[in-house]
Amino acid sequence: MVVEYGDDIVIIDVGVMFPENEMLGVDLVIPDVTYLRDKLDHIRGIIITHGHEDHTGSLPYVLPQINFPPIWATRLTAGLISAKLKEHRLLDRVSIRTFASGDRIQLGRLAAEFFHVCHSIPDGVGIALETPVGTIVHSGDFKFDYTPVDQRQTDFAKLAELGSRGVLCLFSDSTHADRPGYTPSEAVVSDAFDSIFAAARGRVIVTTFASLISRVQQVIDAAVRYDRKVGVIGRSMVQNVTVAQDLGYLTAPPGVLVRPDEIGILNKLPPRQVVLITTGSQGEPTSALTRMANRDHRQIEIVPGDTVIMSAAPIPGNEELVSRTIDNLFRLGANVLWGHGTNVHVSGHASQEELKLMLSLIKPRFLVPIHGEYRHLILHARLAQGLGVPSGNIFVIEDGDVLEVSPDGAEVTEHVSAGYVFVDGLGVGDVGQVVLRDRQVLSQDGILIVMITVDRRTGMPIAGPEIVSRGFVYMRESEELIERARRQVQLALEQARTVSLAEPQQVDVDWQYVKNKIRDVLSKFVYDTTRRRPMILPLVMEV
Amino acid sequence: MVVEYGDDIVIIDVGVMFPENEMLGVDLVIPDVTYLRDKLDHIRGIIITHGHEDHTGSLPYVLPQINFPPIWATRLTAGLISAKLKEHRLLDRVSIRTFASGDRIQLGRLAAEFFHVCHSIPDGVGIALETPVGTIVHSGDFKFDYTPVDQRQTDFAKLAELGSRGVLCLFSDSTHADRPGYTPSEAVVSDAFDSIFAAARGRVIVTTFASLISRVQQVIDAAVRYDRKVGVIGRSMVQNVTVAQDLGYLTAPPGVLVRPDEIGILNKLPPRQVVLITTGSQGEPTSALTRMANRDHRQIEIVPGDTVIMSAAPIPGNEELVSRTIDNLFRLGANVLWGHGTNVHVSGHASQEELKLMLSLIKPRFLVPIHGEYRHLILHARLAQGLGVPSGNIFVIEDGDVLEVSPDGAEVTEHVSAGYVFVDGLGVGDVGQVVLRDRQVLSQDGILIVMITVDRRTGMPIAGPEIVSRGFVYMRESEELIERARRQVQLALEQARTVSLAEPQQVDVDWQYVKNKIRDVLSKFVYDTTRRRPMILPLVMEV
Repeated sequence: MVVEYGDDIVIIDVGVMFPENEMLGVDLVIPDVTYLRDKLDHIRGIIITHGHEDHTGSLPYVLPQINFPPIWATRLTAGLISAKLKEHRLLDRVSIRTFASGDRIQLGRLAAEFFHVCHSIPDGVGIALETPVGTIVHSGDFKFDYTPVDQRQTDFAKLAELGSRGVLCLFSDSTHADRPGYTPSEAVVSDAFDSIFAAARGRVIVTTFASLISRVQQVIDAAVRYDRKVGVIGRSMVQNVTVAQDLGYLTAPPGVLVRPDEIGILNKLPPRQVVLITTGSQGEPTSALTRMANRDHRQIEIVPGDTVIMSAAPIPGNEELVSRTIDNLFRLGANVLWGHGTNVHVSGHASQEELKLMLSLIKPRFLVPIHGEYRHLILHARLAQGLGVPSGNIFVIEDGDVLEVSPDGAEVTEHVSAGYVFVDGLGVGDVGQVVLRDRQVLSQDGILIVMITVDRRTGMPIAGPEIVSRGFVYMRESEELIERARRQVQLALEQARTVSLAEPQQVDVDWQYVKNKIRDVLSKFVYDTTRRRPMILPLVMEV
Repeated sequence: MVVEYGDDIVIIDVGVMFPENEMLGVDLVIPDVTYLRDKLDHIRGIIITHGHEDHTGSLPYVLPQINFPPIWATRLTAGLISAKLKEHRLLDRVSIRTFASGDRIQLGRLAAEFFHVCHSIPDGVGIALETPVGTIVHSGDFKFDYTPVDQRQTDFAKLAELGSRGVLCLFSDSTHADRPGYTPSEAVVSDAFDSIFAAARGRVIVTTFASLISRVQQVIDAAVRYDRKVGVIGRSMVQNVTVAQDLGYLTAPPGVLVRPDEIGILNKLPPRQVVLITTGSQGEPTSALTRMANRDHRQIEIVPGDTVIMSAAPIPGNEELVSRTIDNLFRLGANVLWGHGTNVHVSGHASQEELKLMLSLIKPRFLVPIHGEYRHLILHARLAQGLGVPSGNIFVIEDGDVLEVSPDGAEVTEHVSAGYVFVDGLGVGDVGQVVLRDRQVLSQDGILIVMITVDRRTGMPIAGPEIVSRGFVYMRESEELIERARRQVQLALEQARTVSLAEPQQVDVDWQYVKNKIRDVLSKFVYDTTRRRPMILPLVMEV
């Protein structure tokens, strides 16, 4: 999100999106920042509201494109960002400045004030941005938790104060605008852990998001109560726990946390003295828990008596992977706890009644629902209408929409380039719609390659056609089909040659025409025979 | 499921599985029936418990493999099966025999008695199969609905009677063994529809499974109450509604249902007199509702004022597609109702308390939890243990396990071939693990093809190497990368030639060696440069 006043630009959050199912082979989706290209010297800074990937993950890719403006964040967020940028060997090129909630910083003619909000990671903030035309408030990702693990409630007083000072426009988290009531407090997880830890006769293995530091704290606290030692497993979990512990956001009595290089000693302890915290809550194929479930982890073998707690909700699209992990853990004899009714996970986002509370405290003139799928934005808009915000004052906008706000009114004035940029391996932006469409075709029915060598002088084929396929049929068992396809190509070649010879003025054979002909004939034959549409790639070599 | 006693075999249900995410390009998954191949003349019949795809969908593929034994089903189920087999041009080769619940049929030395069960389709049954060693009961897919739409409750009396006669083994639906309490009655949907229809000022568009005939009946009933006409849209919906109406399982007052070829007239009625029932509840890309959401439907255009009811739960794996459909409908200005708290859908499967009721009525000696993911089978087993069934009497088994049951005991004695067979287009079983693995690789990073023409006599390359890629990078923008890759191949070729020349006893060049060399060099180069692993396919033509 870009906030712009005159020559001053402030960027709020630089997150990644996880690829959707049809973005085949794409590792990450980052924002297109074309709009900023001509305005690099207007950028006064980047404010990061909290340390989750969907708010920080594009920094390594976007920072080099925008000349590394200073990054502002709270201490924990700054620590997590530093670790990330270090991995990308960018740390020495950035300036990361920390603030505490309550602080106020000046960014050109914009002044940012920060207020603490509860979320599923400590040290999250919302932002009040004072502009010459009025104050705009960005909620950050928030919920109203009366009993958060770190004892720091969302800053009601500041929200009320902002509301009474007058807020021009509120940008507010919509993730759970479809959920009635209140999101339960993180404290309910503590009770759930207590009863599970008390009943578990073997090891307890907890998986959650690596960034869910409060949850890790709860696991440690429960382990202490039940005299267990805690091992941390999985690269990102180890990294985040290390940062959080170094900065004092995660505390454990001496001897409780086992060092990553000493995990082996846990296998020597009695199982009922052991807790493992691991990555893999989304069933990611290469994560630690998934490996354990597949009997493929170097250090940890799942055995009957193990209790596994899935302390996370599947991100939409990951349900199948998560289900498979749960099934495989059950197959190995573990007891698995997950989902509704178990209270082993609560969300970090506000439900409907909390969104109403936010609106009632801030009393904004204009509302922009943010952070959610389109349906959540709409439902958030409706909630606001229910509270009396005129529908003309609510803006459901999407990436690239430019909303101009002034005391006289607000309107969407233009749409700028702000689509998705795909990251695949080291490539940023080199995978686009053409490549994805090819991958889609290849993934469904594979490829048929037709290879011909021709004499440059005569235009006559001197070798081939040969047909090779991958991902289409198992070639060894389909020799007859391939042979029939080959004869179809031969026929097409002969016909094409006839055409060329019939036009004596044309000295060279039009190989593009021949290739198209081969493609047409072969794709019809293959579809009629198999009802499949593999990619068909005719290759002609001249010698 | 195959039930075998001596020389008598009865098959229960012949369903399809929908492909999982990584079964790329696969249309359907059907069972491997190798086990039956040597026993075709033992098969006394196939009993189909109800008309859902996951119980009938493999019939067109499996029947020809097992010599078309007679199929037994209730009238509606038989009607739906007939329509399906007609589409596959198999109807004249099969014998479909109907029974009513309460009937008893003899199949060799096995006698089958049928009892009505409530489910999300009318005319479902469970089966009591009398064998010389005792009675086994198959629950079918069931729930205990006290107020079903067709007024026919699950047959408590018969279940109690079977229980008091004595049941050796119960095979019972486990789909919702993870849900506490009772599954709500289909009747709650009626109330939800009432309030939605009453409030809707424009058209009401309802999507549900085409087989959910009871739901379609509810839509028609609500339409009648609110003076609306009903259009049915989508091939499978039209087909099922036609069958159900012909057989009297779906009733509508004259003039309420608009004929499929007259849908156009609905566009001329005032919107508040129109209801549409459509396919697309799973966000299937080619379904009617998805097309409407994408502004791509021939007849129906979504407009502000439309109310869309998603009267189905997403099948695991379809969440992303369903979400996208909902978002797109909102974008077009429709109001969409879906999910928890709306009561626009209830499940057709028993929850935990109902499973306990089934167990308490049947009081089986042995229990086999069926129909669910592995975790559901385990949870069902635990429920039964909680009711006092000894854990040694409960068998959590998977496809291919052979359970031998006798009055003396039960045990899994062997595992027979019974895996997945993939249907892709017209091909049944010709797509296996090799092809799927290739599709997986192709889908992630595409393919790089290296083409070389060599002189057969000298073994010298006379054209190429040329490199063509698809789904890897956009070639026009990556000419330099491809050129560097080409030079790597050239280098490898020269090295390989040196090796061959160094062994004068070897007249022919070992092209397999050269190909492997090219693959190794290129895959290392590509990975180092891009961190991607496309399929690399060296092709050598001799002239």
